[in-house]
Amino acid sequence: MSKSPKVAILMGSDSDLPVMKKCIAELTRLEVPWDIVVASAHRTPERVAKYVKKCEADGVLVFVCAAGGAAHLAGAVAAQTTLPVLGVPIASEPFKGLDALLSTAQMPPGIPVATLAAGDWGATNAGLLAAQIVSVGDPQLRELIKKDRESMRAKILEKNAKMRTELGLPPEDAAR
Amino acid sequence: MSKSPKVAILMGSDSDLPVMKKCIAELTRLEVPWDIVVASAHRTPERVAKYVKKCEADGVLVFVCAAGGAAHLAGAVAAQTTLPVLGVPIASEPFKGLDALLSTAQMPPGIPVATLAAGDWGATNAGLLAAQIVSVGDPQLRELIKKDRESMRAKILEKNAKMRTELGLPPEDAAR
Amino acid sequence: MSKSPKVAILMGSDSDLPVMKKCIAELTRLEVPWDIVVASAHRTPERVAKYVKKCEADGVLVFVCAAGGAAHLAGAVAAQTTLPVLGVPIASEPFKGLDALLSTAQMPPGIPVATLAAGDWGATNAGLLAAQIVSVGDPQLRELIKKDRESMRAKILEKNAKMRTELGLPPEDAAR
Amino acid sequence: MSKSPKVAILMGSDSDLPVMKKCIAELTRLEVPWDIVVASAHRTPERVAKYVKKCEADGVLVFVCAAGGAAHLAGAVAAQTTLPVLGVPIASEPFKGLDALLSTAQMPPGIPVATLAAGDWGATNAGLLAAQIVSVGDPQLRELIKKDRESMRAKILEKNAKMRTELGLPPEDAAR
Amino acid sequence: MSKSPKVAILMGSDSDLPVMKKCIAELTRLEVPWDIVVASAHRTPERVAKYVKKCEADGVLVFVCAAGGAAHLAGAVAAQTTLPVLGVPIASEPFKGLDALLSTAQMPPGIPVATLAAGDWGATNAGLLAAQIVSVGDPQLRELIKKDRESMRAKILEKNAKMRTELGLPPEDAAR
Amino acid sequence: MSKSPKVAILMGSDSDLPVMKKCIAELTRLEVPWDIVVASAHRTPERVAKYVKKCEADGVLVFVCAAGGAAHLAGAVAAQTTLPVLGVPIASEPFKGLDALLSTAQMPPGIPVATLAAGDWGATNAGLLAAQIVSVGDPQLRELIKKDRESMRAKILEKNAKMRTELGLPPEDAAR
Amino acid sequence: MSKSPKVAILMGSDSDLPVMKKCIAELTRLEVPWDIVVASAHRTPERVAKYVKKCEADGVLVFVCAAGGAAHLAGAVAAQTTLPVLGVPIASEPFKGLDALLSTAQMPPGIPVATLAAGDWGATNAGLLAAQIVSVGDPQLRELIKKDRESMRAKILEKNAKMRTELGLPPEDAAR
Amino acid sequence: MSKSPKVAILMGSDSDLPVMKKCIAELTRLEVPWDIVVASAHRTPERVAKYVKKCEADGVLVFVCAAGGAAHLAGAVAAQTTLPVLGVPIASEPFKGLDALLSTAQMPPGIPVATLAAGDWGATNAGLLAAQIVSVGDPQLRELIKKDRESMRAKILEKNAKMRTELGLPPEDAAR
Repeated sequence: MSKSPKVAILMGSDSDLPVMKKCIAELTRLEVPWDIVVASAHRTPERVAKYVKKCEADGVLVFVCAAGGAAHLAGAVAAQTTLPVLGVPIASEPFKGLDALLSTAQMPPGIPVATLAAGDWGATNAGLLAAQIVSVGDPQLRELIKKDRESMRAKILEKNAKMRTELGLPPEDAAR
Repeated sequence: MSKSPKVAILMGSDSDLPVMKKCIAELTRLEVPWDIVVASAHRTPERVAKYVKKCEADGVLVFVCAAGGAAHLAGAVAAQTTLPVLGVPIASEPFKGLDALLSTAQMPPGIPVATLAAGDWGATNAGLLAAQIVSVGDPQLRELIKKDRESMRAKILEKNAKMRTELGLPPEDAAR
Repeated sequence: MSKSPKVAILMGSDSDLPVMKKCIAELTRLEVPWDIVVASAHRTPERVAKYVKKCEADGVLVFVCAAGGAAHLAGAVAAQTTLPVLGVPIASEPFKGLDALLSTAQMPPGIPVATLAAGDWGATNAGLLAAQIVSVGDPQLRELIKKDRESMRAKILEKNAKMRTELGLPPEDAAR
Repeated sequence: MSKSPKVAILMGSDSDLPVMKKCIAELTRLEVPWDIVVASAHRTPERVAKYVKKCEADGVLVFVCAAGGAAHLAGAVAAQTTLPVLGVPIASEPFKGLDALLSTAQMPPGIPVATLAAGDWGATNAGLLAAQIVSVGDPQLRELIKKDRESMRAKILEKNAKMRTELGLPPEDAAR
Repeated sequence: MSKSPKVAILMGSDSDLPVMKKCIAELTRLEVPWDIVVASAHRTPERVAKYVKKCEADGVLVFVCAAGGAAHLAGAVAAQTTLPVLGVPIASEPFKGLDALLSTAQMPPGIPVATLAAGDWGATNAGLLAAQIVSVGDPQLRELIKKDRESMRAKILEKNAKMRTELGLPPEDAAR
Repeated sequence: MSKSPKVAILMGSDSDLPVMKKCIAELTRLEVPWDIVVASAHRTPERVAKYVKKCEADGVLVFVCAAGGAAHLAGAVAAQTTLPVLGVPIASEPFKGLDALLSTAQMPPGIPVATLAAGDWGATNAGLLAAQIVSVGDPQLRELIKKDRESMRAKILEKNAKMRTELGLPPEDAAR
Repeated sequence: MSKSPKVAILMGSDSDLPVMKKCIAELTRLEVPWDIVVASAHRTPERVAKYVKKCEADGVLVFVCAAGGAAHLAGAVAAQTTLPVLGVPIASEPFKGLDALLSTAQMPPGIPVATLAAGDWGATNAGLLAAQIVSVGDPQLRELIKKDRESMRAKILEKNAKMRTELGLPPEDAAR
Repeated sequence: MSKSPKVAILMGSDSDLPVMKKCIAELTRLEVPWDIVVASAHRTPERVAKYVKKCEADGVLVFVCAAGGAAHLAGAVAAQTTLPVLGVPIASEPFKGLDALLSTAQMPPGIPVATLAAGDWGATNAGLLAAQIVSVGDPQLRELIKKDRESMRAKILEKNAKMRTELGLPPEDAAR
C-alpha cells in the first residue's frame, strides 16, 4: 500500500489476521489505503500509544481494532485518540466471542468504541464502516460506496434467481 | 436547533427520550446540530425510509438509532443509507438490553452498524462518536473534541483529589 | 409448485436453504403450496416490501422468515403485513442462534412475530405451524394434519419397540 | 363474553392475569371472543387436556398459553391439539423469563409452539397474532386488523409531533 | 432385566440412548433393576401417563427422564406421580443443553424434579442418585453404594500415582 | 421438632433462612421431622463433615443444602455421604442464581446432587422432594403426599373459578 | 494511613468507592497499609501508568483494581507491572457485572489478572487475597490472617446457635 | 522436580493435565519448583485436606486448582488454607467453562479464590501469577519475571515485523 493510510488496523495477535483479511478486502476494494500492526493492549501498551500517535500524524482518520477474550485493544486505542475507533470482537474459545463483544461494547461514558459483530461478519463490516467514515470528507468515496452496495444487491438477486431455477420455481416477478 | 442538522437521531419509542437526552447533551455541548424523531422500524417502516432520505438531502452525516428488545431500527436505517449508522441498545425489561445489544451488533456482512454500550453509557458515547465522525471533515470540531476530553480528565483528577482528602490520604503525587 | 402458494418463505441468505428444506418438506407432505425467495431485510429492503405485497395479492396466507445473527427479516415482513408471520432463528456462528432467537422473539408490542426454535427443529415446526394456520380456513387440511400427527406417534411407538427388542426388554405392555 | 370463544387463553397461575390482561385487551378491541382459565401443565394435567378438547368442540381456533419458569403449558396444550398454539413466556424471578423463553421456544420437531416475547410485549402480541390467525378464515376481521395497525401508526406520528414541539424542533416534514 | 424394575427411564427420543446408557451402566453395576422406554411428553402424552401408572403398579420407585431443548418430559412425569422424578437435560444443538437445564430445573412450586447436570455427567449421576433413593428402603443396596464410592476413590488414587510416575514426581506421601 | 429428624437442612448463611422456611413449611405440613444448621462449605468445612456424619448416625435419610454464588455446599455434603443430597440454588445478587444453579447442577460423575429451581420455588420443591424420597420406605407418608397434591389441585380449581367469576365468565364446564 | 502502602487500590470511578470500602475494611483490620486512587484505564491512561510506577517505587506489593462494564482497569495495570494484580468486577447496570467479570477474567496469556467475584463479595475477598499475598513475605501477617479466619468461623457458629434457639431446636451437638 | 515445591497444582481429573501442562511450562521456565496431584473436591475430599496440610508444612506458598463443571476444587482448597489459591476454570462440555468460571469466581466473602480465564489462557496465566506471588518474597525471581515479560514483548514485535513483510508493508517505524 503505497499511499498514506487512512485506516489503521491493530490486532491483539497475529492469529487474528485470517479474520481481519476480510476487513482489508473491503478497504482494498473501496480503494481506501490502510495499514496494519500486531499490537497488544496488555503486552505492548506503550507501542499501542506510540503507533496511534504516529498514525494521527500521518493522516489516519479511523482505527480498527480486533481482539478476543478480555478484548481491551479498541478501548486502549480510544483512550489515546479522539478519532473514531472501531472494535471487532474476535470469537475465540471457549466463549465464542461473548466475552470480547461485552469487553468491546460496554465502554464507559466518555470514550466511545464503535462495536461490530463478533466474528467474520464484524471484520467485513468494520472495513465498510471505516470506509463510510472516511467518506464523510471524501464525496468520491461516498459514490463508490453507494455503487458497491448496489452491486451487493444485484448479487442477492442473482442468487435468488439461481435458487428458484434449481427449485423449479417461476421467476419471482412472474404473473401468476 | 436552527442550523441544518449534521446528526439525526431516531428512537423506536418516545419512552427512549430520557436515555437519548444524554446523546443530545453531548452533541449540544460540542455544538453539533442535531434532529430527532420517534420512528419505528416495525410500526412505521415507510416513514423511516422517507426520513432517512430527507436527512441525506439536508446534509446529515451520521445517524444515531435507539431501540430496545428486537432492536431493528439501526439495521433498518443502515439498509437505507451508506452514511455511518450508530446503534444504542436500550436496556428494557425483562432482558435488560442483552436482546437489544445482540440485535444491534450482530449485523450481517454488507450493512454495518456501529454499536454502543447498552444503556445510558451508550447514549452518551453515541453523541461523542457521532461528533468524532462529523469531525472527520471539520478540523475545528476535532479541536473542540480534544479539549472536551482534556476537561473530562481534569474532572477525574478533581474527584480523585476530593476523595483522597475525604479519606485522609496525602495528595497522590506527594513524596513519601 | 404449480398451484398458487399459500405460504411464502423468505430467507436472509441462500446459505439458509439446507435448514429451510425441512420447512418445505413439511409443507409439501401436507400438500400446502409454497413459494420461496432469498431476500434480506438489510440488503434488499424494498424488495422485501414488494414481495410481501405481491404475495398478499396472490393469496398467500402465512409468511415464514429465516435469518441468523441480528435476525430482522421476520420483523421487517411483519412490518409490511397483518398476515401471520413466523420466524425461524438460524443458528449461525459464533452465538449459535441465541442472537437470532432474541432478535426474532423480542418484538415490540403491535407487530407480532411467531417465533420457532433456533435451528433445524424450528424449520420443521415452522412448516407445521404454517399448515396449521392455513387450516383455520381449510377443514380438509385440518384432517390431514391430524392424521399426520397420528403417524408421527406411530413412528415413536415403533422406535420404542425396536429399542426394547435390541436391549432385550419385554414389550412395554407385557404383564409382569 | 357472550359469544362462543375463538381464542382460549390458559395461564399456569392466576398471578399471570395482570400480564395476560394485555392479551385480552387486544382481543376485545378487535372483537374476537375469548375464554380464559387457570390451568397448570404440572398441577392439573388432565384438566388441561379436557379443556383443550372442550374448546376444540366449541369452535376455538387458537390457544394462547402463558407460563413462567420451566414453562411447559404451551407445549402441553400443543401436545393435545393440532390447532395453532401461542406461547407467552412470563418474566418471573429470578431469571426474568429467559427460562420461560427457552422452555417455550425450543420445542422438538413435530409439535410447534408460536413463541412471543417474554414479558408484557409478548402478551399484547399474542392477542394480535391470535386475531391475525382467526382472520385467516374471516375477511371482515382482517380489515379490522389492518385499520387497527393504521391507527397505531397515527399514534406514533402524534407522539413524534408532540415530542418535537416540546423540544422546539420544526415539524418533521418542514422544508429547511 | 428379569426382575421387576425399581427405576424406570423415559427418553424423549431414541437418539438419547447413547447418553442414557451411562445411566443404565450405573444401575446395572449396582444391581438395581430398570426399564426404559422412548416416550415424548409432546408427541405421546397419553402414553407417558399410562406408562407412569403401569410403573407405579409394578413397584417402580424412581423415574429418570431425559430430554433436550424445551425438555418437558421430567415435568410431565412429575405431574403424573408423587414418586421422585429425576431429570437429565440432554445437551442438544444449538444451545448445548442450557435450554434443557432451565426447562428441567425451573419447575413451579408443587411439582419437584431433581435435576442433574446437562450432558453425560448427568446421565451417570442420575443412575447413582436413583440407586441412592431406592436404597432408602434397602439397607443392602446402601452398603453396595458405599463400597462403590470407595472403589471410585481408589481409581483416582491410582490415576494420580500413574500420572506422578509419568511426570517423574515422587509418590505423593513421600517425606521430603 | 422433638422426633429424630429424617431430613437435615444446611444453609451456607443465616441470610438464606427466609427462603428455606418454605422448605421447612412443606416438611412440617407433611409431618417429616427435620433439622437445620448454618454451615459453610468454605468457612466451616470440618463442621459440615462432622454434622453429616452425626446426621447419618441419627437416622437422617435426605440432605437439603441451600447456597448462593459459587454454591458448593450441596457438593461438599454429597462428597461426605451416599445418602440423597438435594441442592437449592439461592438467587443472590448480582447474577440472580445463575451462578448457584450451575455450581449446584453441573456436578462431576460419581457425586450426584439433585438440583431444584433457583429461588423460592426450589426451596418449596426441595421440601416436597425430600418428603417423596423419605416416603420410599414409608407407605403412610406416601399416602399423605398423594392427598397433599390433590388438595393443591383443588386450590387451583378454586382460584380458576374465582377468577372466572370476577371476569364475568361462565363456569368452565358450562355447556355453551 | 501513615505507613508506606503495601496494597494500592485503583477504581475506574469514584462511584465505586462504596463497594471498595469493603476491601479497605479488610486491609485495615489486618493492618495492611493501603492507598487508593480514582484512575480510569480509558480516561486517564497515562496517569494509571505513572501511578503504578510510583507505587512500585514506594514498595507496593499488590494492586487491586475495580471497574464495571468493559472493565479494562485491572488489565491496564497488569500491562504496566509484573506485581500481582487483582480485579474486582463492579456489578453495574444493565448487565449486573457479567460484562465486567468476563472483561476482567478472560485475560490473554502472558498478562495474568486474579479475578474476584462480581459485586460486594469480590471487594471483600480482594482485600483478603491482597493480604494473603503480602503475607508471603511477612510471617507475622500470615498468623494474623489465620486468626482472622478462626474468628470468622466462630461467628458462623454463633449465628447457627442463635438461629437454632430461635427455631426451638436443641444445640447442634446435643445427643439425641 | 528435586527442590521443595513452592507451587502445588491440584486437578479435579487427570484429563485436565493437557491444559495444566501450560501452567507447568510457565513455572518450569521461571524455575519455580512445583508439585501436582489429581484430587477431587467431591470424590476425595479428605485427601484434598491432607495434601493441602502437607504442602503447607513443606513450604508451598501458592495453590493452583483446575476443575470443570461445578468447579469446587479451588474453593475446597481455599477452605483449608490461608495461603493464596488460584483457580483455573476448565472449559468442559457442554457449557464450555461458563459453569466452571462462575463456580470458581463467585466465592462468598471470607474465602478468596483468584480466578483466571476459562481455558488454556487461564492455565498459562495461573503459572505466571503463581510465580508473581512467590516473587513477593524472592527478589531474584521478580527480576526473572520482568525479563520474561520483556522477551514476550520482543516476540510480538518479531511477529509484527514478519507479518508486515509478508503483507508487503514498510517497517512500522518507517518515515512516510
